[in-house]
Amino acid sequence: MPKLRQNIITGDWVVIAPERSKRPEDFVAVKRAPKKQLKQECPFCPPKGEAYLSRIKEVDTKHAYVVTNKFPAFVSEDEVIEEGGSLYPSYKSIGGHEVISLLDHDQELEDAPLEVLLDLFSLYQNRILSHEKNPVVEYVMIIHNFGSEAGASIDHPHSQLFASSVMPSYITKEIGGAKKYYKENKECVFCRLVEEEGGDGFRVIAENDDFIAFTFFAARFPFESWIVPKKHNARFERTSKDELKKFVEVFSDVQKKLAKTLSEPAYNYFIHTSPARLNHTSIYYHWHLEIIPRVSNYGGYELGSGIVIDVVSPESAARFLRGEKD
Amino acid sequence: MPKLRQNIITGDWVVIAPERSKRPEDFVAVKRAPKKQLKQECPFCPPKGEAYLSRIKEVDTKHAYVVTNKFPAFVSEDEVIEEGGSLYPSYKSIGGHEVISLLDHDQELEDAPLEVLLDLFSLYQNRILSHEKNPVVEYVMIIHNFGSEAGASIDHPHSQLFASSVMPSYITKEIGGAKKYYKENKECVFCRLVEEEGGDGFRVIAENDDFIAFTFFAARFPFESWIVPKKHNARFERTSKDELKKFVEVFSDVQKKLAKTLSEPAYNYFIHTSPARLNHTSIYYHWHLEIIPRVSNYGGYELGSGIVIDVVSPESAARFLRGEKD
Repeated sequence: MPKLRQNIITGDWVVIAPERSKRPEDFVAVKRAPKKQLKQECPFCPPKGEAYLSRIKEVDTKHAYVVTNKFPAFVSEDEVIEEGGSLYPSYKSIGGHEVISLLDHDQELEDAPLEVLLDLFSLYQNRILSHEKNPVVEYVMIIHNFGSEAGASIDHPHSQLFASSVMPSYITKEIGGAKKYYKENKECVFCRLVEEEGGDGFRVIAENDDFIAFTFFAARFPFESWIVPKKHNARFERTSKDELKKFVEVFSDVQKKLAKTLSEPAYNYFIHTSPARLNHTSIYYHWHLEIIPRVSNYGGYELGSGIVIDVVSPESAARFLRGEKD
Repeated sequence: MPKLRQNIITGDWVVIAPERSKRPEDFVAVKRAPKKQLKQECPFCPPKGEAYLSRIKEVDTKHAYVVTNKFPAFVSEDEVIEEGGSLYPSYKSIGGHEVISLLDHDQELEDAPLEVLLDLFSLYQNRILSHEKNPVVEYVMIIHNFGSEAGASIDHPHSQLFASSVMPSYITKEIGGAKKYYKENKECVFCRLVEEEGGDGFRVIAENDDFIAFTFFAARFPFESWIVPKKHNARFERTSKDELKKFVEVFSDVQKKLAKTLSEPAYNYFIHTSPARLNHTSIYYHWHLEIIPRVSNYGGYELGSGIVIDVVSPESAARFLRGEKD
């Protein structure tokens, strides 16, 4: 029978419809599409990608590099177009948009050595801190698309940084929910989730002393997995190198489990961190990373209603990912 | 250069990034996947689909029929499972979930005679009115998925009715925005949109005396198209047969234009109507249908931020759909 669940943070509704429940093998058909670009033709492979190389920022990393996006969604102020009309509100699309690539074209994240991952996530921190200094920037988000089903048009492993002049609505919603929970319960809702998930462990996929990974009770996607610091920590970009080392251990473990269970799916991940300029949010907001393997498509009900029908229960998904029989 | 636009109704942000603009031919790769099920094996083809036929509701239609969904997202009260916990809010997933099929397996909507479409949309009205009588139902939404990329697992053309015990968040958001606009401007925002779009006609795709179809200024998807009654009308299900005849003319025209321009894409559509039990909304809410051809996938930024990057400007999309050179 279906279960109607609410996301305690965003208030969004999800129907978990276990009758439609599928085994991981059922998703293999939507396995990540094969790569199309040879190394020789890859625009992100130095030194062939010279147009990109010329835009490299000066950052000292061994395994990753940063360039501005060729088709930016957010640009510097003097490049912007303005439109108008009260019925058609529009604003300057200012800020920044960068590509953060691994140097190695063939390096899949699930097989990446921990030092490569540490380099990548350290570079994220560096770039977020840099963009947060820009007074027009309201929020900086790091995302990673891998596989064409996940929206990636280039095969070479690369992440993107979006520094936007508006606060993303999803962040506003999470902050609003976390604030409400804090007012009512005098504690951070993410800290509470960490404790609760660690308790019975039904949805836990991986953990170490500092981080826990679990499937979320009111997941928007089958096998959606969160990685959350165990100790309260609002901002990803201020996380210490030692903690980041612990983070990449869990991240790597989750990547391997998703790749094995779902036969290397296309996936997205993104980092939700507390907005730099809203100091009060650091009390009740708690950074986390969400990984979404793209094993199913939203239909008209999800697009038209905002209610998601999830065909795999988060509890089953966690059992599959842990390698247990359902 | 990118343009940052806001949806006047929902408040959501969209970046129109025209540098990434593509011609319709660039989307042909994501053309609707070929049908997999033969008529003989189709669960929705009477009389083979006997399990379905036994669940047919008594409705007098020539071209379409209704059955309960085999895997319902919303069920009757006595079938429901309850979960619990304050950190994990959950509710009874009660209401109804039906499948509304065309009788003809091979009838694509873009080629359907107007009388078939009229039958289908009249049946929608009949079923919505029926579910609205159920006191546990907060909202009834009709959706249609066609093609596996649009979330359809069965090839046979079919729509779905979702009668939910909670108000969908997207409807709450639209109602909130429409109410705010009404308070500030003393008019319905949709009536204003109809007037404005009809004025310069930049985004108009099709129209007749009673309905207008246009691409939306702050579209969430490339080629997203809306069909809106020209005269104020809150509830789809109360629309007269004569008006519905005018509606299916425009609907058919838009379907043909999308199929031709995008080489028969997978698509979703859904109907947004004013909630039956909220009488005051009928002043400022205005029913409409949105069609979304599935020619691109959301990436991590859309999923993580709620901000959508749209690679085709709605103005270009309208020109392509009208058959003009861009």
